Amino acid sequence: MDKKALIAALREILPASQVLDSTEAQRPFECDGLSAYHRLPLVTVLPEQQEQVQAIVRLCHQNRIPLVARGAGTGLSGGALPDENGVLLSLAKFNRIVDIDPDNLCATVEPGVRNLAISEAVADKGLYYAPDPSSQIACSIGGNVAENAGGVHCLKYGLTVHNIMALKVITTDGELLTIGGKTYDSPGYDLLALMTGSEGLLGIIMEVTVKLLPQPERKQVILAAFDDIGKAATAVGDIIAAGIIPAGLEMMDRLAIQAAEDFCHPGYPLDAEAILLCEIDGNNEEVSERIMQLRQVLDRTGPMHFATAETEAQRQQFWAGRKAAFPAVGRISPDYYCMDGTIPRRHLPQILKRIAELAAGCGLNVANVFHAGDGNLHPLILYDANQPGELEQAEQLGAEILELCIAVGGTITGEHGVGIEKIDQMCSQFAAAELSQFHALKNAFDPAGILNPGKAVPSLHRCAELGAMHVHHGQLPHPELERF
Amino acid sequence: MDKKALIAALREILPASQVLDSTEAQRPFECDGLSAYHRLPLVTVLPEQQEQVQAIVRLCHQNRIPLVARGAGTGLSGGALPDENGVLLSLAKFNRIVDIDPDNLCATVEPGVRNLAISEAVADKGLYYAPDPSSQIACSIGGNVAENAGGVHCLKYGLTVHNIMALKVITTDGELLTIGGKTYDSPGYDLLALMTGSEGLLGIIMEVTVKLLPQPERKQVILAAFDDIGKAATAVGDIIAAGIIPAGLEMMDRLAIQAAEDFCHPGYPLDAEAILLCEIDGNNEEVSERIMQLRQVLDRTGPMHFATAETEAQRQQFWAGRKAAFPAVGRISPDYYCMDGTIPRRHLPQILKRIAELAAGCGLNVANVFHAGDGNLHPLILYDANQPGELEQAEQLGAEILELCIAVGGTITGEHGVGIEKIDQMCSQFAAAELSQFHALKNAFDPAGILNPGKAVPSLHRCAELGAMHVHHGQLPHPELERF
Repeated sequence: MDKKALIAALREILPASQVLDSTEAQRPFECDGLSAYHRLPLVTVLPEQQEQVQAIVRLCHQNRIPLVARGAGTGLSGGALPDENGVLLSLAKFNRIVDIDPDNLCATVEPGVRNLAISEAVADKGLYYAPDPSSQIACSIGGNVAENAGGVHCLKYGLTVHNIMALKVITTDGELLTIGGKTYDSPGYDLLALMTGSEGLLGIIMEVTVKLLPQPERKQVILAAFDDIGKAATAVGDIIAAGIIPAGLEMMDRLAIQAAEDFCHPGYPLDAEAILLCEIDGNNEEVSERIMQLRQVLDRTGPMHFATAETEAQRQQFWAGRKAAFPAVGRISPDYYCMDGTIPRRHLPQILKRIAELAAGCGLNVANVFHAGDGNLHPLILYDANQPGELEQAEQLGAEILELCIAVGGTITGEHGVGIEKIDQMCSQFAAAELSQFHALKNAFDPAGILNPGKAVPSLHRCAELGAMHVHHGQLPHPELERF
Repeated sequence: MDKKALIAALREILPASQVLDSTEAQRPFECDGLSAYHRLPLVTVLPEQQEQVQAIVRLCHQNRIPLVARGAGTGLSGGALPDENGVLLSLAKFNRIVDIDPDNLCATVEPGVRNLAISEAVADKGLYYAPDPSSQIACSIGGNVAENAGGVHCLKYGLTVHNIMALKVITTDGELLTIGGKTYDSPGYDLLALMTGSEGLLGIIMEVTVKLLPQPERKQVILAAFDDIGKAATAVGDIIAAGIIPAGLEMMDRLAIQAAEDFCHPGYPLDAEAILLCEIDGNNEEVSERIMQLRQVLDRTGPMHFATAETEAQRQQFWAGRKAAFPAVGRISPDYYCMDGTIPRRHLPQILKRIAELAAGCGLNVANVFHAGDGNLHPLILYDANQPGELEQAEQLGAEILELCIAVGGTITGEHGVGIEKIDQMCSQFAAAELSQFHALKNAFDPAGILNPGKAVPSLHRCAELGAMHVHHGQLPHPELERF
């Protein structure tokens, strides 16, 4: 099927205004938050009814046309990067809140509903939706599910997968699956978890039932400043080991502190090598007691300063610097590359030291601002794209940092997904047996391989070419699955 | 391959003493906790090394011999029922605790380690493993993962799937997969969740890394007694809606209360129609405040009695009756049939009323003792197998109760799994599209269908014969997958 026939067929499904084929009209869809990669799809569609999506999926399936779903386009790993020979499916028009069910502490929403809009819609009932990616004002819940999004509060409340109860999903042949429900457990294989974080490779998410939580009675933030980044990192492990699970536990290093202070003046101590921001929530008495315990634990590593936000305004101010850290770092360097890896949290002191050594070795600066409590690192590698070779150096340093994460038993992504950005690192993360199982799974959902091709899971040959693949007995297993 | 050749081949992998083929030696393996179903396998093997298991799996795979894995055999849905033409693989000898890692709050154990043994092994570090099925003294962690086991404390701390971090799994062709790790999130499809609750159909679990939690500073239990079961059920929804997530929230009705009181004298009020047992854990101040809140919420529905266990001995006594409820009910009826269904908890009042009506309609008694907080019902249908027709009546009533669960948006199993017991109800729970996806998934892991055949997921033809299947356009989808 050529482009012309495809557009004609799509215009039988949708009004002409919802089928975009000009370069100009498609420009907003050429990339997501990983803007270093961009390309135009053959055609972009903006359906607004479930039956239209089913018809589009069937059309693509029958004609073996790549199909890439897109929510708000805020993803940071290129998961929504279009396929130049395929259809880009925007789900932005599916933005209705279908049902709010306070009795069962859940809400059902369409995939285009923004993350924060859910909490806003249930605020008058004293409820909220816990996962809070930095992009929560803009990002939509369908993308949150596709990427298994995290956020500051996921340390205590879990990732997206721990906060959803049911999904409606359109399969590659246009069937509508209902997965999960309003109960605690579900028989059969766990398709709910399997779809979550599958980065658009297994199906199109059409409806999400999210868990709602009662708003905590009280939230309090402490700021602890250290004269040594290793001490701050040690304190993180001590806090968790003491049985305190904060609502958020974030770390910033000297470079990030200074950038944030210059940008929005949150009152961070400029003489510190690192600060921890630790939020405790719960009922009144619980918070008071936990803050006291926290103080005792922190005293073991000896912070230079320790401050408790006594008012809500002060709490907001403490967080303002953390929330603005990425744009703040953007002001002190022409470009930066935001990494996302996870390590077992007890390795934080060594890993932060090693990252500093690696950065020094290649003459680049790295600012660290990250979810310390869950060991989810976000080193920001500063570089200048106008200096020849610096981008490549930054990418090389990023790759070394991810290898370091793997070496200590960690992973190459905490919350941003693999997408197109980290597909090569997947060859280091997994052996052939696991990758083969991934391909078999993909085959069980999308045998023609039309859904988001080229993302998230590398082919075994790609890994073999990179020299990173464990090859069994000189042979790649399951060569028949290599078409993905 | 005939039986003789199979046994000879197995004796090349294992010492003769670990290959059992006599009726007498295999008798202990002929059933699990669902003893109404029993049958002897062709041969039972008891390997003790991972390489032996890999060799056994490869042998079965190459010769298309059914293979059923078994842990402690405490399952209640017949998941470990042997195949009469196959090999029963006991994992009981894999009972080592491989590693305890208090810094990262986790432990790595072999599948035959008993659930309670994990908490015992880490108790001196102030830690424990949260999921606590009633059988926790006997059941093993491999089976817990295979069935996604629950327990009293899963309301607050989650099911097995929420409390494990990594698995080692042997695939149907003998490969060893490493899934997950000691970090918060993992790239690629969520194989960890997919394996959990897959009832032995996707692979053999060889190692489990479980999350450990710090022991709470304080636990307190309240007992609230009601003159009406509907009031107790309403109170359950009120407690959760008030933002209180108890560590456990259990309900017992009059028949269960009386049976328990007669059996072990926990001091339950015999004039009550229902009691709630509600455990709160946490730090000292937190527990005090929550108990106060709980009291206020309960006052709305008006309990007849309200008692707080003031000592640890009294707490244990309050729980003793609940824990002994099943054997206690066993004393007042020659036989009983333990059901396991889940509903959205706000439907509890209507569903309990309807169960009583259905029971009255067929002249059987039902005792209710269950995890009320997560809407996980355990109606115990009392009958006498020696009275002609009573077993069939009990099974019929059980099926009606499960249909009722489905009708209100619930599920046919809360924590016991589907196994062989509920395979027909899966036809009511799911439409053809979901079942087809399950079969495709099975095919991605076990294309020959040798792992635990005939369990957990019914064939579409079985459902069609039961008249329960939604058939699309007069055709069953994916007839090529029907061999499972």
